[in-house]
Amino acid sequence: MAPLAPRSGDAVFANVERVNAELFTLTYGAIVRQLLTDLEEVDEVNKQLDLMGYNIGIRLVDEFLAKSNVSRCVNFKETAEVIAKVGFKMFLGVTASVTNWDVDGTSCSLILEDNPLVDFVELPDTCQGLYYCNILSGVIRGALEMVSMKTEVTWLRDMLRGDDAYELRLKLLKQVPEEYPYKDDE
Amino acid sequence: MAPLAPRSGDAVFANVERVNAELFTLTYGAIVRQLLTDLEEVDEVNKQLDLMGYNIGIRLVDEFLAKSNVSRCVNFKETAEVIAKVGFKMFLGVTASVTNWDVDGTSCSLILEDNPLVDFVELPDTCQGLYYCNILSGVIRGALEMVSMKTEVTWLRDMLRGDDAYELRLKLLKQVPEEYPYKDDE
Repeated sequence: MAPLAPRSGDAVFANVERVNAELFTLTYGAIVRQLLTDLEEVDEVNKQLDLMGYNIGIRLVDEFLAKSNVSRCVNFKETAEVIAKVGFKMFLGVTASVTNWDVDGTSCSLILEDNPLVDFVELPDTCQGLYYCNILSGVIRGALEMVSMKTEVTWLRDMLRGDDAYELRLKLLKQVPEEYPYKDDE
Repeated sequence: MAPLAPRSGDAVFANVERVNAELFTLTYGAIVRQLLTDLEEVDEVNKQLDLMGYNIGIRLVDEFLAKSNVSRCVNFKETAEVIAKVGFKMFLGVTASVTNWDVDGTSCSLILEDNPLVDFVELPDTCQGLYYCNILSGVIRGALEMVSMKTEVTWLRDMLRGDDAYELRLKLLKQVPEEYPYKDDE
């Protein structure tokens, strides 16, 4: 039997169960507000959002692999394109562009022009160090770790901090030989 | 010009921006987990989820009124039907049924057969008093308050607690005469 062809982000997104984006945006805002109240330090909130994202990412990758028919990417460049065009579309309904590759092909930027997490959001002066969307970097890091790529994911630009786009820097730290996508004890 | 006809839940849901339901489910799960860690007491988590929902509801009602073309309901019975058939559909992609009216027409139950908040969720023994979906009751209470209905919304049945359905009891406490849907100072 021929392997299934990978599906486009649009095709996958059209076929997954979905909820209203504004409900998601407001629910996410409620998390951030709660963390700011409970943890007080903005740096701690950034860490916690990243960790929440990581825990979501290690589970979300299952849905991604099951629904997208994407199989092993030949290299990190292809991986980044799949995240930008299929992953973002499948989960958030938007796509990102991939730019600014380093010469090794192990670092690149994902640029998001549309970001459903930040609709109606304005940061008060007391939250200027906050990476409001830090859950996203955690999701990517967690998902990639489940397919044997250790990465570092950081924000280079953030429109809530006055920049002109959302830019996530993706750096491949280590690619571990893959025997089976999941560890038995997890 | 003739007034716009109210739109069905399906029609509204097809035309709003949406995100992946599993991402929403996992994100909501992350909130609950965070609150359990930070607040420790299950009762406090229930209260906080309800309050988060309330704050979401008072904002979500704007989107609901703008997109659904629903205008003032003639009575609480119609209001409950609109929540069940248009509101739930528009935000969560599911519908509820309305039953068990009291003789006054001021209390009823909303029965949810499908509930995207609880996919993959199992409560550990330490969380037996948790109303995991308490954000929903808060959303309904907040949204109704913005259209001048003070309500009490409580869970009668919860499948995570071993019941055979999700049943929310909706009780109208007070209907305040409506002059303008929003207070100027909010």
